Amino acid sequence: MTNLKEILADYPAHFDVKVAWGEMDAALHVNNTVYLRYAESGRIDYFEKMGFRVNVTNTEPSVGPILAEIQCKYKAPVTFPDQLVVATRLQPGSLDVYSFWVEQLIVSQQLQRVVAEVKARLVAYDYQQKQKAPIPDELIAKLSQASG
Amino acid sequence: MTNLKEILADYPAHFDVKVAWGEMDAALHVNNTVYLRYAESGRIDYFEKMGFRVNVTNTEPSVGPILAEIQCKYKAPVTFPDQLVVATRLQPGSLDVYSFWVEQLIVSQQLQRVVAEVKARLVAYDYQQKQKAPIPDELIAKLSQASG
Amino acid sequence: MTNLKEILADYPAHFDVKVAWGEMDAALHVNNTVYLRYAESGRIDYFEKMGFRVNVTNTEPSVGPILAEIQCKYKAPVTFPDQLVVATRLQPGSLDVYSFWVEQLIVSQQLQRVVAEVKARLVAYDYQQKQKAPIPDELIAKLSQASG
Amino acid sequence: MTNLKEILADYPAHFDVKVAWGEMDAALHVNNTVYLRYAESGRIDYFEKMGFRVNVTNTEPSVGPILAEIQCKYKAPVTFPDQLVVATRLQPGSLDVYSFWVEQLIVSQQLQRVVAEVKARLVAYDYQQKQKAPIPDELIAKLSQASG
Repeated sequence: MTNLKEILADYPAHFDVKVAWGEMDAALHVNNTVYLRYAESGRIDYFEKMGFRVNVTNTEPSVGPILAEIQCKYKAPVTFPDQLVVATRLQPGSLDVYSFWVEQLIVSQQLQRVVAEVKARLVAYDYQQKQKAPIPDELIAKLSQASG
Repeated sequence: MTNLKEILADYPAHFDVKVAWGEMDAALHVNNTVYLRYAESGRIDYFEKMGFRVNVTNTEPSVGPILAEIQCKYKAPVTFPDQLVVATRLQPGSLDVYSFWVEQLIVSQQLQRVVAEVKARLVAYDYQQKQKAPIPDELIAKLSQASG
Repeated sequence: MTNLKEILADYPAHFDVKVAWGEMDAALHVNNTVYLRYAESGRIDYFEKMGFRVNVTNTEPSVGPILAEIQCKYKAPVTFPDQLVVATRLQPGSLDVYSFWVEQLIVSQQLQRVVAEVKARLVAYDYQQKQKAPIPDELIAKLSQASG
Repeated sequence: MTNLKEILADYPAHFDVKVAWGEMDAALHVNNTVYLRYAESGRIDYFEKMGFRVNVTNTEPSVGPILAEIQCKYKAPVTFPDQLVVATRLQPGSLDVYSFWVEQLIVSQQLQRVVAEVKARLVAYDYQQKQKAPIPDELIAKLSQASG
């Protein structure tokens, strides 16, 4: 995974995923929607450390992410058994007042290659006020730091 | 579906489900967990009409169902395309203070047969108090009526 | 749904979906990956009529679709209960030798609006030869007809 | 996890699962059907080592498992983030010619307790002949050994 290691080095957050047999569909590989579940898990892990999370019952003010747009290029079929790495980073230059993009790679240990490239646009949402909110300064600092 | 009609006549609630291609797994039929999603949808439809529902954000007192136990006998593999009927009823004599059982059949239009038999035990839960609650009298009346 | 009817009239294929309660996540609306399951079901219904389908066990030559890329703009949160329409069409001018794009709208009956816009690139795949294949002439004819 | 360790010691197979955020539903804990996906993954891992697996495209004779019945007692709600252990064993005395039962525990690292008890009946199925088959002697030996 020499080349992969170099590629992954450009992404500050790595999240390990074990492929479940039941995630394969009748085409005998992992269903397309499941790749996006993997990507979701990678993003949530990335944001969790920054305190940026969905919080529907909290009575204190809180701003979390809402997914506004997603793009996924499927590069190779994934089959059980396999272990994946979901790598996530802020897309350079994508931060604006209310939203930003992250770039994600899904890498297969079995295939030793990138199996999907994902881009996702997140909007900051105030679960108290039920409307979009400016991205908190603290989050901007953490996102920028994480993207190193 | 003559015989099936008779069988279904003993269940007050019928819920139609369209099988999705993506619900099949690598065994080329609908994954075992998805049968339980169908059953869940049938129960929720059944309870919805009785005002018995999950309500995590409501600030008013509210009692809803929590699933305590489930049993499923898989009688036949389901494949796409198919239309199913999920039939639900109160299990006679199963009502106690905090819980009751429902019996469910999943019927395939394609196969013209019962494809699964499900039994589920539901506990009444007070989402305000965060503890189990006596089944409301009103719900008992409705459950009994529905199964009548 | 007057405006929606006009919008939907530009799409030859309409597929009805009933939202399941269990498809909502802890953000209290339908999970982002489920929108793509809906889109998948809409595409499969669209292709099914054209004999363009996944066929892993068939011993006769057969060409079916593989999803190469997907894009989804989430326009509004969907909640249970709701009925959706997934509208699908060939993207004009997108047909090349091995692949084409479809455009899809997901419309909510409850909200009376478009809740997601999806674009998907499909590659023709020969499940016998295990490699991509030219899109069959017959399929081109049907796709063009359907989008007419 | 002292007590848990003792409990788990009675199960020869342990399978680790990481809870995904997206597996929670609108009740704000992991959906009931997902527990059964965890159990499925645990069983498949257990059987995989014995060469007992679903094999729809293999042209050589092969016997694999089909799930005939499942029972699940939900003992505690699971929430993200958490790490689970799925423990699996042959149910003593349950082996007959065509089928057997496994017993499974799902244990939460976060809660330090059993969160679900699962029982599943598996039937041996010949994917060549498309009918049930006697459980191969080799599998019986391995199952018995594993449970020893």
